[in-house]
Amino acid sequence: MFYPKPITDLIEQFQKLPGIGNKSAERLAFHVVTKMKSDQVQQFSEALINVQKNLHNCPICGHITDMQQCSICSDLSRDEGVLCIVEDSKDVIAMEKMREFRGRYHVLHGTLSPLDGIGPEDLNLKTLITRLQVNEQINEIILATNPTMEGEATAQYIRRLLDGSSIVVSRIAHGLPVGGDLEYVDEVTLLKALEGRRQM
Amino acid sequence: MFYPKPITDLIEQFQKLPGIGNKSAERLAFHVVTKMKSDQVQQFSEALINVQKNLHNCPICGHITDMQQCSICSDLSRDEGVLCIVEDSKDVIAMEKMREFRGRYHVLHGTLSPLDGIGPEDLNLKTLITRLQVNEQINEIILATNPTMEGEATAQYIRRLLDGSSIVVSRIAHGLPVGGDLEYVDEVTLLKALEGRRQM
Repeated sequence: MFYPKPITDLIEQFQKLPGIGNKSAERLAFHVVTKMKSDQVQQFSEALINVQKNLHNCPICGHITDMQQCSICSDLSRDEGVLCIVEDSKDVIAMEKMREFRGRYHVLHGTLSPLDGIGPEDLNLKTLITRLQVNEQINEIILATNPTMEGEATAQYIRRLLDGSSIVVSRIAHGLPVGGDLEYVDEVTLLKALEGRRQM
Repeated sequence: MFYPKPITDLIEQFQKLPGIGNKSAERLAFHVVTKMKSDQVQQFSEALINVQKNLHNCPICGHITDMQQCSICSDLSRDEGVLCIVEDSKDVIAMEKMREFRGRYHVLHGTLSPLDGIGPEDLNLKTLITRLQVNEQINEIILATNPTMEGEATAQYIRRLLDGSSIVVSRIAHGLPVGGDLEYVDEVTLLKALEGRRQM
């Protein structure tokens, strides 16, 4: 009631975004209204529409892209022998930012979660199986799902799918984060760190 | 380089908003891409265009509105005798949220700031003078500019404009914020609180 309707509408839109509360949404909406020029707002509006229109999942790995195939699948310099399996596109970006991994990815778009009714058929697994059957070159799979219950279960599921194949399957290490503190780390992580200890 | 161009564009747009850094912009853009449905993005985009198209300043008080006159100026139940002068529309909203003030407003759209080249002619003062000349009913003016150097200078300027008129001019009180702590308050505020002490 305090704001004219167009502002209330915009505040509502901002509030729907994660981590943006009532106060922040008001501040952002007011910034748009009072500080941004007409063409800047136009650009913002178009950028929103464009992501919706021009993006789709790569038919090979499932990573989000605006091209026929994603930039990683179409990069011939990348190692076709190693496949890193992640939950979503954000994880691909996180891995890429590390600038160390030179293999390829497969994006599951979720994790197994029976309580939420998400089973194997809801994940991007069919194309994974096709990739493994068609592409003989894959000799290592790195399971990089998150260290959560669901991520762990999903990794286990894929591990079992690959039973009997000659592909080396590994799981990313769990342990203390760099810069972390033994004192403040939870017991499960500490247990994983202890189990995963390496001789030095 | 890690993201497809439409996502990079959207991240850039989010980054331009106040208080949104690189990480947050990425998170927000990914939320739009992966979590929002097509019609939700459309609504967001339209809300942005709408605030730009449908809002203007009330010709009477300068408050932002989507109607011919703002809801406050067109509300006949409000006291025409008291005029509260504020820096911008956000201040009107802050006052209105208090649900106590029943007078009217005048929005300056800024403060005097000689260093930034902002003089009296850049503020919404002409319509204020017209209001005072045309509307004989105004008998009190509350100067509610912010307690900053510029806000104070602007209040002083308007005070002097009204010299010789019969209008009662007051300035909102400066002092300790409710819930504040003497120990942590700055000296200037403490001085103002002391100067502004009231018998009880």
